[in-house]
Formats: sequence, C-alpha cells, structure tokens
Amino acid sequence: MKRSFGSDNHSGIHPHILDSIRQVNADFVPAYGDDSYTQEVERLFMQEFGPDARVFFAFNGTGANVLCLKALTQPYHAVICADTAHIHVDECGAPERFTGCKLIAIPAPDGKLTPDLVKKELKGFGFQHHAQPKVISISQTTELGTVYKPHEIAALANLAHEHDMYLHVDGSRLANAAVFLGISFKAMITDTGVDALSFGGTKNGMLLGEAVVFLRPCLAENFLYTRKQAMQLFSKSRFIAAQYIAYFKDRLWEQTATHANQMAAYMASRLTDISGVSATHPVESNAVFAIIPRDVCNQLLEKHLFYIWDEEICQVRWMCSFSTTKEDVDVFISDLTALLK
Amino acid sequence: MKRSFGSDNHSGIHPHILDSIRQVNADFVPAYGDDSYTQEVERLFMQEFGPDARVFFAFNGTGANVLCLKALTQPYHAVICADTAHIHVDECGAPERFTGCKLIAIPAPDGKLTPDLVKKELKGFGFQHHAQPKVISISQTTELGTVYKPHEIAALANLAHEHDMYLHVDGSRLANAAVFLGISFKAMITDTGVDALSFGGTKNGMLLGEAVVFLRPCLAENFLYTRKQAMQLFSKSRFIAAQYIAYFKDRLWEQTATHANQMAAYMASRLTDISGVSATHPVESNAVFAIIPRDVCNQLLEKHLFYIWDEEICQVRWMCSFSTTKEDVDVFISDLTALLK
Amino acid sequence: MKRSFGSDNHSGIHPHILDSIRQVNADFVPAYGDDSYTQEVERLFMQEFGPDARVFFAFNGTGANVLCLKALTQPYHAVICADTAHIHVDECGAPERFTGCKLIAIPAPDGKLTPDLVKKELKGFGFQHHAQPKVISISQTTELGTVYKPHEIAALANLAHEHDMYLHVDGSRLANAAVFLGISFKAMITDTGVDALSFGGTKNGMLLGEAVVFLRPCLAENFLYTRKQAMQLFSKSRFIAAQYIAYFKDRLWEQTATHANQMAAYMASRLTDISGVSATHPVESNAVFAIIPRDVCNQLLEKHLFYIWDEEICQVRWMCSFSTTKEDVDVFISDLTALLK
Amino acid sequence: MKRSFGSDNHSGIHPHILDSIRQVNADFVPAYGDDSYTQEVERLFMQEFGPDARVFFAFNGTGANVLCLKALTQPYHAVICADTAHIHVDECGAPERFTGCKLIAIPAPDGKLTPDLVKKELKGFGFQHHAQPKVISISQTTELGTVYKPHEIAALANLAHEHDMYLHVDGSRLANAAVFLGISFKAMITDTGVDALSFGGTKNGMLLGEAVVFLRPCLAENFLYTRKQAMQLFSKSRFIAAQYIAYFKDRLWEQTATHANQMAAYMASRLTDISGVSATHPVESNAVFAIIPRDVCNQLLEKHLFYIWDEEICQVRWMCSFSTTKEDVDVFISDLTALLK
Repeated sequence: MKRSFGSDNHSGIHPHILDSIRQVNADFVPAYGDDSYTQEVERLFMQEFGPDARVFFAFNGTGANVLCLKALTQPYHAVICADTAHIHVDECGAPERFTGCKLIAIPAPDGKLTPDLVKKELKGFGFQHHAQPKVISISQTTELGTVYKPHEIAALANLAHEHDMYLHVDGSRLANAAVFLGISFKAMITDTGVDALSFGGTKNGMLLGEAVVFLRPCLAENFLYTRKQAMQLFSKSRFIAAQYIAYFKDRLWEQTATHANQMAAYMASRLTDISGVSATHPVESNAVFAIIPRDVCNQLLEKHLFYIWDEEICQVRWMCSFSTTKEDVDVFISDLTALLK
Repeated sequence: MKRSFGSDNHSGIHPHILDSIRQVNADFVPAYGDDSYTQEVERLFMQEFGPDARVFFAFNGTGANVLCLKALTQPYHAVICADTAHIHVDECGAPERFTGCKLIAIPAPDGKLTPDLVKKELKGFGFQHHAQPKVISISQTTELGTVYKPHEIAALANLAHEHDMYLHVDGSRLANAAVFLGISFKAMITDTGVDALSFGGTKNGMLLGEAVVFLRPCLAENFLYTRKQAMQLFSKSRFIAAQYIAYFKDRLWEQTATHANQMAAYMASRLTDISGVSATHPVESNAVFAIIPRDVCNQLLEKHLFYIWDEEICQVRWMCSFSTTKEDVDVFISDLTALLK
Repeated sequence: MKRSFGSDNHSGIHPHILDSIRQVNADFVPAYGDDSYTQEVERLFMQEFGPDARVFFAFNGTGANVLCLKALTQPYHAVICADTAHIHVDECGAPERFTGCKLIAIPAPDGKLTPDLVKKELKGFGFQHHAQPKVISISQTTELGTVYKPHEIAALANLAHEHDMYLHVDGSRLANAAVFLGISFKAMITDTGVDALSFGGTKNGMLLGEAVVFLRPCLAENFLYTRKQAMQLFSKSRFIAAQYIAYFKDRLWEQTATHANQMAAYMASRLTDISGVSATHPVESNAVFAIIPRDVCNQLLEKHLFYIWDEEICQVRWMCSFSTTKEDVDVFISDLTALLK
Repeated sequence: MKRSFGSDNHSGIHPHILDSIRQVNADFVPAYGDDSYTQEVERLFMQEFGPDARVFFAFNGTGANVLCLKALTQPYHAVICADTAHIHVDECGAPERFTGCKLIAIPAPDGKLTPDLVKKELKGFGFQHHAQPKVISISQTTELGTVYKPHEIAALANLAHEHDMYLHVDGSRLANAAVFLGISFKAMITDTGVDALSFGGTKNGMLLGEAVVFLRPCLAENFLYTRKQAMQLFSKSRFIAAQYIAYFKDRLWEQTATHANQMAAYMASRLTDISGVSATHPVESNAVFAIIPRDVCNQLLEKHLFYIWDEEICQVRWMCSFSTTKEDVDVFISDLTALLK
C-alpha cells in the first residue's frame, strides 16, 4: 500500500494505544462513561489542564467542535472564525445545523485571527436583527499548519471576555502546537484564558476519540444531555479512555507529535534546495504547504497520495504524521525532484 | 471486576474483532471511507442483504437511528413507534432534534407494533396542521427482548407502503433476532420490505460502529452529506470496516448472538423453578425481564450489576451477551435463590 | 355567505378594533416595537397581569406557543401536555422543530391535565439518555372547551416548580376562560404561578396578533433575538398595538368573550331538549361538543360550516364567537332538529 | 409626530388597502387560506407572474425569505448571497436556524451579485465535507437601493441552473424595482428564470403580508406543511388577501412605488447642489445613501429619523415611501443645508 502525505488521519493506530485498548478488554465494564477508565482520564485531563478542566469524549473532530460551540451559545448567536477554519470549510454546515448560529468567517493570513481582524465583526450587540457575536473560534494548529503564540491566544481571549464572549480552540492538532511552542497544554490553553477546547487525538495516533474540554466548570453543566442529543455518546467508553491513558503515559503524545513535526521540518528543509517549489506558509507543525507546477503535481499524484489545497494556484498540502518515516520523505523529495527536471 | 447483566454493551470486544483491527493497522490508508476495507464491507452487506443494499457506517445506535429517520423524512413528518422504542425513550430527543419530526409513541404489548395499533395513528394526511405520518419504526429485537416474525414485519411494511410511508428497523440487536428466527438477514429485512435499517454490532462484540443500511438505493442519494452534517463521519474508517470483516467472517455474529441468546434461555429456564420471580415477557433473544420482590432486588444489586426497568413494579432486566458464561448465570441464580428464601 | 360554527377564527375583526387600527394609521412611526403604541400596550399588560409581566407580540397562536416554549427550554428538554393540546395536535410539529424538545402527550379527560396525570411522566431526571422534563403546558380554555379552576392551575404550577420546571398556558381563548371563571387575568394566571402565557386575541375579535407574556422578567432576557430568529417580529408593530389598546379599552375582550360563551351556553341549552344529540364535554366556554348521527351530520354540513372532531364516533365541534348571533343558533338548531326527525 | 426617512416601514397603511380590509370584514369566512379572497389573490398572482406561479402568504419578509430558502434546500446545502443581503445581515440567523444551511456572503459592489462573483464560490460539489451550494439569493431592489437589470437576473438564473441550483429573489421592494425598470413582474422575474420569490407589500403600503411565490409548481409541493411548521400560517387569511386585491387593483402598487422612487430621485437631485454630501450608490429606487459629516449627522438626527448605515464612514440611508411628501424632502434638505453651513 502507498505511503501517504494526504492527511495525518491516513495513519493508523500507535501500537501503544492499540495495546492499551487490548489491556482494558476484559470482563464487564459499565457503559456511557460510568467506568474507572473514563474516570482516570478525567483526572489526567485535570493534571494537564488544571483542576477546573472538565473532559467529555466525542467521536470525531466535527463532533467535538460542534459540541463546544453548542455549549457556548444560544441559536441567535454568531461564531467568528477564520475563513480557513475547519468549522467553516470542512464540516458540511454541521455547526450551523446543530447550534443554529451564524458563522462569520474572516479572511486571515496564515489562518490566524488577530484582535484587529476580529474587532471589525464585533458589532450589532443589542440589535435584535443581528445574530449576536458570542464565540471567537480559532484552530491550534491552524489548518495552514501555523501556530498561535500563547500571548496571541491570550489577546483573543481577553477580547472575547471584554465583550462577554468566549474563546474556543479547535485543537485537533493541539499536540503538534504544544511541541512547536515547547510549552504545556496548561500554559497554552488554560493560562491564556481559553474557555472551551476540542482536544484531538485521532490525527496523532489514536483510533478515534476526540475530547471536549471545558476550562470553566459551569460550561459543563447539563452538557451530558447536549452530548447525548448530538449523538456523540459512546457506550463502550473504556475503549476511548484506554487510548487517552496510553496517550498521556510517558508523554506519548509528545513523542508522536514531535516526530510528525520533525518530518515536516525535514521535508521543508529539503525543499529549500529545490527550484520550482515555493513554500506558502511557515512550517510550524506537521504540514507543508507549497505551490508547484501543475504538470509536476499531476505526475506526482500518480505516485503519492496528497491533496491539492487550492486548485487555482496549484497549492498543495503535504501532511506528516507519527508514522511518516525519513525514508518516506526522501523518496517523495526524490520523486518530486526528478519530475521538476 | 464484577460480571454484569446490566447491558450487552458492558461486554468488551470479541477477540477476533480486536485482532482484525490489529491486522489492518499497517501503512497509510485513505480516510472517510475511501479505502479498500470499507469497500469490502460494502460488498459484504450486499451479500447479506441483497444487491440493492447500501451501507454507511455510523458511530453509535442513536446516530444510526437518527440518520435513517433523517434520510426518510422531511421535518414536517411524523414517525410512529412503540412507546418502548429506543428512539422514543433513550435518545434524549435526538430524533426530534435532528429530523424536526414528531414522534408518535404507541403503547405496545411486548414492545411490538401491529398494523392495527399503527392504523389508529394513520390520520391527518393532507391536513396542513398535522405532522404527516411518514415512517413506521420498529425495533428488532424489541427493547423487551421480543422478536418480530417475518410476516409481522412484512405486514407493517405493506401498511407503510400503502400510505406512501417507509418502514425503519432499529436493529441494534438484529443478530439476536436472526438467530432466534433461524433465518437470514435478507429474509428478515430485505424480503419483508424494510426500507432502512440500523444495523448494530457494538452490543454483539464490536468495539464501535453501527451501520445505516438502505434497502433501496435511492434513499442513499445525498446521504453522505447528511451523515457528515450529523457529525457521524469517521476518518479512520478502516477500523470500523475491519470489525465488520471479522463480524461476517465464519458468521462470527451468529456464534456470538447464539451464545447470548442461549445464556438468556438458560437463565429463563433456571428461573421457572424459582418461586417469587415472574417473567414478564417471552425470552426470545438475550434479555430476561422479570418482576422480583423489591428487597431481594436491592440486595441482589449489591452483588450484581443490572437495571431496574420499571421502578413502580420492580421489574428488572437481565441482559446476556457473547461474553456471559454459564457460570455467570449459575452464580447469579444461586445468589437470587438464596435471597428469595 | 354562510354563517359558521366552524371556528371562532371564521369571524372577522370587531369594529372597535378595526377602528383603532385606522386611528393609528397616520404619520410615520418607528418599526419593530419601538413606538409609543406598543409601549402603551406593555403598560396595559402590566395592569392586567401585574408589574412583572413582560409582553411581546407574535403573529399567531403557533408562534406565541413555540416562542414561549423556546424561552423556557433547552433542546434536550421535554414538554408535558395533554394529548389534545394544540401544540401537540395542530401545529405540524412546529414546537419540536423550533425548540428541539420532545413533547410528551398525556391522555386527559376533558382536555385537562392534573398533578396525578403529570407525575407519571416526571421521571428520568438526571439520566442522560432521557429528554429532561422542563415544562408543563396547559390550554386555557382547553381545546375541548373546558376551563381550569385557579386552584387547578396553581396545583400544576406548584408541581412544576417543585421539579425546577415551568408552567406554560396556551391562552388562545383566555378571555373566554376569564369570563367563565369571573376572575381577572391576574388572579387566573399571575397569582396561580404561571411562568409564561400565550395570550390570544385573534379568536376573540382581533385581526391578528397574539402575545407572549412572561410572568417573570428573567424569562424575557434575550427574548428579542429568539423572536426575531423565529420570524415572528413584525415591522409595523403599531397595528398590533392598536388592536390591544381597543381590546382592553372598556374591557372589550370581556364583552366579546361573554357573548361568545353565552351563545354556546344557549346552544347547549337548546340541545338538551333534542334526542339524538349527546353532549360530550361540559360547555364552559364558547365550544359545544356533541355526538350526532352520522347521516344527520353529513346533511347538516351541507347547510352549515363546522368540523368533525372525531370521525370514528361522529363527534362534532360547534364554535361560537363574538359575532355569532342568537338567530344563527336558532337557525342551526332548527335545521338540526329537522334532520333528526 | 415626526416624519421619517428611517424606513419605508415607518409608513402606515395605504387608505385603499385599509379600506379593502374593511370591505371583507363581514360575515364568517373559512380560515387558513380556504376562502374566496385568498383564491382570488392566487389568480391575481398568476396574472402577474404567469400561470405557473404559486403564491402563499407569509407574515413578514424574514418569514417569506426563510420559507423560500427552505423550499429550495436540504440542510446540507449552502446559499450564496451578497454580504449586504437582508438574509445575511438582518434576520438574526433565521435562515441558518430554520434551513440548517450555510450562508456564503460575497462582498458585492452596490449590493449586486454577478456571475463572476458567484463562480468563485461554486466549488466543492460532490465533496462530502462541504456544504453543497444550492441557491443563489439576490435582493431586488438591493439593500443599497440598486436594481438588477433583467439580463443580469437571467445571467444569474442561468448560472444557477447550470449547476443544478436555484435562483431566489428577495423582493421586499420588488415594486420599486419594477417601476424603475419600467417592466412587468413577469418580465423581471418569471421570464428571467427566477425559481422562487419573496414578494413584499408591507414596505409599499400594506399593513402586513408578504408572499412566497414559486415560479415552478413542483416547488410548491408539500409547502403547506413547511409554512405551518415555520409558524407562518395565518388564520384570518382574508385580511391579507384583501390587501393584495387592493394592491393589484388599478395597479396601486405602481402608483405607490412610483411615488416613493420619485421622492428619492427628487432628494438625490437636491443633494447634488450641496457640498459636503456625497452620494455613495446610484439612486435607482426609494433609497438614498450618502456620506455626510459626522457632526452634521448627529445634529440632523435630533430633527429627523433616519439610520446610519456605516458608522465608520458616517454613511447614512434615507428611505422614501408612498407617504413621503415633497414637503418632507424640502424640509429635510433645508435642515441639512443649514447644518452644513
């Protein structure tokens, strides 16, 4: 089977995580989160994010994002995000559908919102004809592979709170950001004032099982009903829990994310020598974005799996993951180089 | 850890199924169903249900049910079900929330709808003030452990079709029903005229991964968008596919369901000798329902995990699963007998 | 044109009300409720219901009901009502659609809920799989023309509040109930502990313009956005306001409702002498329910407009209104009598 | 009371229209559209828009727009509109809430979409992660007072149909556009290929009562249920019908819209002589947009009612209506001129 730079979810399950699933697969265990494994994960998230953190499993990233937004909003609210945001571009309207809210998408360089960009949309408060802005939602890492600095997150959190709004972080690749910044989840998320977080694991070696993390306990009130009604409650909860237990043990997440980031950095370093390829975003995590000649792109696609990000300018995205090898990159670069000649 | 008669989802993963997950966990594989494993499962469902069957994975039973109903309805429709139906009682309003439809719940002996029961609600067609009946939804097995005969399903399908309506089957325990009836899925579902099916695996030994099965291809049109918007699209689809591959291989589902049913039958047979316990429903699958003295119930709960179905009359439900052992039953019956003395 | 006993909304606009519309039809007036007429109505409702009353116009009864329920609930809640309730039977699923809530319909003699009937559905609190009961909704008058006594309303309000729930009253014919009881709106609604009220005017002589009345100011918070998003905000608000100004002036509502009730009482008194007609509900407002022979019914329908309430038993509903005349009744009774011979 | 340039809905009811309401206010009439007046209006719309036109009343512009969009879409669809569109800016998220669809708002000069602008968003078809574009929605007149030429509408209709999409027109001020273009409704709407139309009357002299007009009968199928569930079904339908009867009689709509447009043109002509005022959009209907000095604006607001459209640049909107007089304009211009000195 082909190797892939298509997505970090083209990778499988990290062996430690699969092994952890196997280890809890004995006997009978209560369902729906009422088991000791899930409770252990609740403690682990408190260790990582502080004692106020409340964690709930969801099935996938879209589920975690939509549940976060629903917990933060009423249907007449608006959610402000970058125009590249997964919630805006890649969830088939699920956020609008389940929350009833309007999404306000702001064109954002490198996928990052700033207070100045957001402020232009902070209007219409108290005007009954307008959806009321209530959430700023950012992605960490962004969909363009860039990473917010903690002070940048804090600035957005402050702006949100000044307007009685919330800050949500779509952290489907949060581990990659933490590794890039070299700081703890707590320093990046809790200490900067984030209110709700979609915590991803699937793209960093888990089978499945994203998590909704509230940094303020009040947001978790009645959330069980919201999750159930959103069809995101899993019966055999222990098998998500087991994955998180392995994920946090010996900081596995850090190892896998570090590796993925290193592979992207290595790829980027190899590309600098190659004429005909122009990187389009700083490589701060496990994604490499570049513009390449269209005919080269088409031929490369015959040998390798990756996605064209912007057809118009032939911008491509190459994703690395915990299971990408240096050899994968070398073969890929070699093929690319050959085609460019 | 305690053994449990609480639910068949208190069991873990069947070893063959977990092994199948391990086997596909190599290399990179396209996500979101665009992989050869998922495609193989599509063929397997066609083998089981006939060439018109179209299968789509969902995360859980609620997800599968709601997606089926959404595919069959517009928001101004009504769904007719038994008052014991999972969609009515145990999904926290998810069906109403995502479909917009009204649920019409009919009191039903032994959890089974009949044409006569349904006919009373087939009214108001063409009257703009009334939600328009569009779906009859039944559970096979029912939530009370009873099983529809094929001719009973066919009668409901005919009734539905005569009124330009659909028949949906919530088959979270479909394997247990097939085993009880001794017939194929095709004979039970396709040949009786069912339109859409929620096919369960989690309660019969899978990790997770219910399936939506349409018996008419036209119902599958545009369903990919509905599933995605319902937050039920899984990235690493191969890991659900792998489970189904194992599930159908050597008819594993039949072995596990047969065992679960046998354990329930064995338990029921042991109960007949015991005074003070009255069975409340025929034992046709893996559930045993009985009324027991309240003080006995409370003491039994200290030793065993099971649920009280109806507090008022102290009716309890004892579920068996593929991992329930004869010894489990013997110990349980022994403890119960001792308490009854 | 035929006279009608079909519905009180077959009547037109009371001349005083139409005249009031004409009177405010001069000059320019701010839209969307920001006008002095609307503000005057806000004061009038405070006079009628007490200083905590907050009133908002809606377009129709369905709109007022759904808005009330939305203001009282989150989507994972359940609303308990009689099985004859307008919100359950006659709104094409609008409550489920806009609130996301489950409706739990209880068979109720004479259309009236009682604490005993409701208590059976007060269960599953705190259980994540169950829609959480949050509202008891009653109709005053009921859809069967019966009327709750104040102490009956108070008992339901107390029951609701004991369970952290709300009591909603669908008062599309509230004036008819007040007249029957001979008490003020405040004594019937505010003093009994009702939380939210749909206040009807259309069936008692208005052109259009129901009202949402909250008896606790906190419920009105953010309601403007909910109303707008529900498509129930009217631009030329003065023209609803003008109607209410006339409606309350010289207690016009009382005159019109008294007349309608009297016509129904007169009709009922005439029916007692006629064999072959059996009244099915006490006549406490402006509706008369009776069972008549099917062939008589069919022939009567050729001469008069009215609705068959229950096809199966040939139960009919004859509604009176402010514009029903004694002669209308006499002619009707005369025709009915002739047919019965 | 102050005169107003705030909105055309600050005006009252045209005397002929109020008189028509009075004329139908006799006797009993069936409710919910089952009356001869409503049926007459159905014929009138067929006369105006052609024999395929199907008309349904709604309460307000938001209701008509949302109903049109709902009839054209499934929840996983997207609606493309100008960033100034009423559906995007002024409906508090009602379209997203009731349709479930994503709105894609395109920055548009003078409020008008063009095929080139729209084409950039015609992407992601068949990609399950993307909301599927299904409707192009334009406003005629636009919210900036500009007017689409018939060939411009036809071009958008063609583009829509080429992609299996629909064209919706928000015609809350359609009469003003027709008058400006000097063509019939049919030539502007039916003959250009529009699929669904929100037809406004409230801003042009009606009390209330917008209309949903489908230009293809198939779109009207099952629409009665959608309208009812959307809380937009009016009981005393004759009183909307009566208004439309007067509206079309002797082409009243043309007289009123012509007058409103003329007043705006007159105002614009007066403004050209005044330094310090710069018009920002061509005056093609009954709206005048201009940038004025902020201090002048503030002082002018003490004497006159109008709205600031864009706070940042102090752009104001002055609306004329059927009841705006030449004297109103003269006084306004005189006050403005004095302040500018």
